[in-house]
Amino acid sequence: MNIEVRTATIEDLPDIVRMLADDFLGKQRERLENPLPESYLKAFRELHADSNNELIVAELDGSIVGTLQLTVTPSLSYQGSKRSSVESVRVDDKFRGQGIGGQMMLWAIERAKEKGCVSMHLTSHGDRKDAHRFYENLGFAASHVGMKLVLK
Amino acid sequence: MNIEVRTATIEDLPDIVRMLADDFLGKQRERLENPLPESYLKAFRELHADSNNELIVAELDGSIVGTLQLTVTPSLSYQGSKRSSVESVRVDDKFRGQGIGGQMMLWAIERAKEKGCVSMHLTSHGDRKDAHRFYENLGFAASHVGMKLVLK
Repeated sequence: MNIEVRTATIEDLPDIVRMLADDFLGKQRERLENPLPESYLKAFRELHADSNNELIVAELDGSIVGTLQLTVTPSLSYQGSKRSSVESVRVDDKFRGQGIGGQMMLWAIERAKEKGCVSMHLTSHGDRKDAHRFYENLGFAASHVGMKLVLK
Repeated sequence: MNIEVRTATIEDLPDIVRMLADDFLGKQRERLENPLPESYLKAFRELHADSNNELIVAELDGSIVGTLQLTVTPSLSYQGSKRSSVESVRVDDKFRGQGIGGQMMLWAIERAKEKGCVSMHLTSHGDRKDAHRFYENLGFAASHVGMKLVLK
C-alpha cells in the first residue's frame, strides 16, 4: 500500500471536511455542502498562513484517506520548550484498520521533533475507546484529564 | 483585593518562572536561576511575537501572583471555528484560595470569546485533583482523556 503523507492544499479541503463530518460527533457539527461554506475556506487560509499550524493529509492512489492538524505551541514550561498537539485526526471509514492513521501520526511526530517540540499532546473524547487504544499503541500515556468549556 | 489581570511583559518573566517551578511537577522541570537561562527569554520572545499565543499575569499590589498561557488555534472543525486552550496555569502558593485563579480564567475566557473562539480546552495532570474541581466550578466538563507522548 502506497501511502503519501503531506501538507494539505486547498484542493484537499472537501475531502477533509467529508472525513470530519463522517463521525458520530462530527455529523452534528459540520456542513458538508457543495460548494463548501465560506467559513471552511476562511479557516483553511488562516491555518495555512500560520507557521505553527499544519494541516496534514494521507493520500492513497490519488485519494485522500486521512487527515490531522498539527499545532506547535511555544511555551515557557520545561525551560522554554515547544510543545505540539494534534487534533481532528480522521481516517476514511472505508480505509480503517490498514495502518493509515499510524503512518500519519508517525509523520506528525517526526515533524514535531523537527520543529523542536519536546512533547505531543492530544485529547480524545471519553467515548472514543478505540482511539485511546490506538494512541496508547503509539506510546501515548493517558496521564491527563481533558476538560472543555463551550463558549457562547 | 485589587487584582489586575493583563498581558505579561518581559519584566514579569522571573516571577512567571518562579511560579512554574514552585509546583510538585514543575520543580523537576524548571531552572529558576538569576539570571534566567536564555532558553526562557527566547521562548518569551517567540510567544510574544505570536498573535495566537498570549502570556497572562495577575498582579496584586505590584506583585505578580498568577500566570497562564492562552493559545488560539484556527481549526476546520465546527465549520471552521477557532478553539482556545490554556496551559501553565499557576497561582503563587501564598495567595491561593483567594479567587485569583478564577479571575484570571474569567479574563482568559473573555479574551478567547473576543478572539472568536467557540470553545476552551485544557488538560490537567490526573494527579491534580484540586485543579479538576477548580475547572469544573468554572463550567468545564471533564469529557476528554488527555494523552501525552514525550518526544526524545
